[in-house]
Amino acid sequence: MDISRIEHIGIAVKNIKDSLPYYEGILGLKCYSIEEVVNQKVRTAFFKVGETKIELLEPISDESTIAKFIKKKGEGIHHIAFAVPNIDTALIEVELKGVQVIDKLSRKGAEGLKIAFLHPKSTRNILTELCQ
Amino acid sequence: MDISRIEHIGIAVKNIKDSLPYYEGILGLKCYSIEEVVNQKVRTAFFKVGETKIELLEPISDESTIAKFIKKKGEGIHHIAFAVPNIDTALIEVELKGVQVIDKLSRKGAEGLKIAFLHPKSTRNILTELCQ
Repeated sequence: MDISRIEHIGIAVKNIKDSLPYYEGILGLKCYSIEEVVNQKVRTAFFKVGETKIELLEPISDESTIAKFIKKKGEGIHHIAFAVPNIDTALIEVELKGVQVIDKLSRKGAEGLKIAFLHPKSTRNILTELCQ
Repeated sequence: MDISRIEHIGIAVKNIKDSLPYYEGILGLKCYSIEEVVNQKVRTAFFKVGETKIELLEPISDESTIAKFIKKKGEGIHHIAFAVPNIDTALIEVELKGVQVIDKLSRKGAEGLKIAFLHPKSTRNILTELCQ
């Protein structure tokens, strides 16, 4: 696969508002966007860090996978996302190599990107997203 | 704090050798260095991803914090490291803001960097490293 950079690190938080004093006040990062991704049942907040981003993910429903993640493991790093030039080619390539994908086809994610998730069973226990 | 980029993502693995087929064969990243950090009781493997890195951490002793992490949580993302221009200034700044630090003074880490860890209690449940 042709990975150019880490697109973002996804972090599950109970509440974006309560997290801002740490990310802005202590780390000195600037939140440049807050967006709801309704089909994922989350509110997201983005911070640029060099060429990559931190994405905070707050559940907006108890049915959200983020709500379930927090209930099981607490707040913390939820996934890592890699930027690829062609996500559809990348998905075919990893499936041919035996990787179990969560999304067989790319779909629309936050910030208008085409995204797809790979299953942690196939990615050394790390929920992994591809983004184009 | 003045963070320029994510320096690396630290990932706990049972065994670097078993992890290479995924990171090299599937993701297409290239391991450019394997190094033992004896005082941390780990073997590390590094992969460049754009301006940041992935660092695999394999315990070389059952007493390693990485061995304990894997025993408790399984393999997975262990910490996030931010690059700062002056780690000693950054440590003073975060302590003044009430952050609990694991290392009061920076020390030598992998790749000859000056490093220090902040306690997850103060960093929204994410073990956080500063690197210079």
